[in-house]
Amino acid sequence: MLRLLLGGGGHAPEPRRTVFIEATKAFLGKIVDQVLFIPYALENYDRYLEIIRELGLDAGYHLEGIHLSENPLDAVTEAQAIYVGGGNTFRLLHTLQEKQLMSTIKARTQDGLPYIGVSAGTNIVCPTIATTNDMPIVWPQDLRALDLVPFQINPHFVSGTAHYMVDGILVPYAGETREDRLKEYHEMNDRPILAMSEGSVLCVEGKTASLVGDTSWARLFRKRQDPQDYTPRDSLDFLLS
Amino acid sequence: MLRLLLGGGGHAPEPRRTVFIEATKAFLGKIVDQVLFIPYALENYDRYLEIIRELGLDAGYHLEGIHLSENPLDAVTEAQAIYVGGGNTFRLLHTLQEKQLMSTIKARTQDGLPYIGVSAGTNIVCPTIATTNDMPIVWPQDLRALDLVPFQINPHFVSGTAHYMVDGILVPYAGETREDRLKEYHEMNDRPILAMSEGSVLCVEGKTASLVGDTSWARLFRKRQDPQDYTPRDSLDFLLS
Repeated sequence: MLRLLLGGGGHAPEPRRTVFIEATKAFLGKIVDQVLFIPYALENYDRYLEIIRELGLDAGYHLEGIHLSENPLDAVTEAQAIYVGGGNTFRLLHTLQEKQLMSTIKARTQDGLPYIGVSAGTNIVCPTIATTNDMPIVWPQDLRALDLVPFQINPHFVSGTAHYMVDGILVPYAGETREDRLKEYHEMNDRPILAMSEGSVLCVEGKTASLVGDTSWARLFRKRQDPQDYTPRDSLDFLLS
Repeated sequence: MLRLLLGGGGHAPEPRRTVFIEATKAFLGKIVDQVLFIPYALENYDRYLEIIRELGLDAGYHLEGIHLSENPLDAVTEAQAIYVGGGNTFRLLHTLQEKQLMSTIKARTQDGLPYIGVSAGTNIVCPTIATTNDMPIVWPQDLRALDLVPFQINPHFVSGTAHYMVDGILVPYAGETREDRLKEYHEMNDRPILAMSEGSVLCVEGKTASLVGDTSWARLFRKRQDPQDYTPRDSLDFLLS
């Protein structure tokens, strides 16, 4: 049975942090004690592990960095659970492809290995990484990702025009809004996009899917349809079929 | 002699519009009357041309849409000048590659064809599109671009944390800042990045380069160095060598 716990990004501040930690505990339960942490989306793997521990985002589980294992493929094969951190999605996918870990992560997750992803780690469970917000600093062999769910996710979803501080005043950005970018995706592609707000958590268990925790909400963008908002009260099972 | 006029994006509002129009007139002069407009970065080519004309960003020149010509390659071969509009950089590059126009645009521009680019049209004069802000809605065959200048450009440059309106209050974004993203580029790559603010215009003529117009400024990011700001008073010739 597929088991995914997917964070929309931005989980460090309270009360989002509490929601993420409680969701992780509920998801992994007491059977798991060690979790394989995959930090490839950032440059400094050791520092990344430290930050996760400092913030308590390990939820009390023992995280083992995959970069510290002699054979990363064996580490995936033997893991009780995996946790793929955020950063740059292109770098994450490129590194997983380069280390030939994609097919094993996919097969084990399909067989029920609990998978936790945050931001970039959430992007890569989708069919492709075409709805990442990241800069293409490196070119993966392929934009296809783990393809564990049949829809796209846009993490760190924010609506409307960004504002930036210029000479002490917040001024509007003239470039594309997030909505513009997701509309452009649908000009070239068909899959629905679940745009997950910062601090939101999505839980997939077999054929069921729902948001969890009171900091969670998401907006679903479908081609040529008005977007629709979802909260933890709503079933998202329909996205899996 | 290489001749490029590159807009950093966001040229519609006054006084940025006046700067862009005046720069275009100075750049194209009175010898050119027709300009080949390449709208491939957006979905609706006709509407794009209309908007450019409505805003006066044609600067009084006759723009011919490449999509209206029977043979796009012939249109490039015969053009007096080209103007590549903004939108999605991945879509623009993908379409230019698919229509096999890249090598002709590159060769003609190297031979002195005046090239105007805005946003995505500015991104593609660089060695690669690795410093675009856009979403990878489609996968070009290759991330390599026209490679007409030896540095990268990040258009629509904005500094610091974005803020978005939530329940009537502007709240900070938890994802990467633009500076974070450019730093990530330098974790994987070496080229300098000229980050062009919105409303800025860069003019390259042979071995000289400078910003033009009083709405222009740019920040240069170099690997492992502190960024440095430039205005139209400064020579940027050093970027070309």
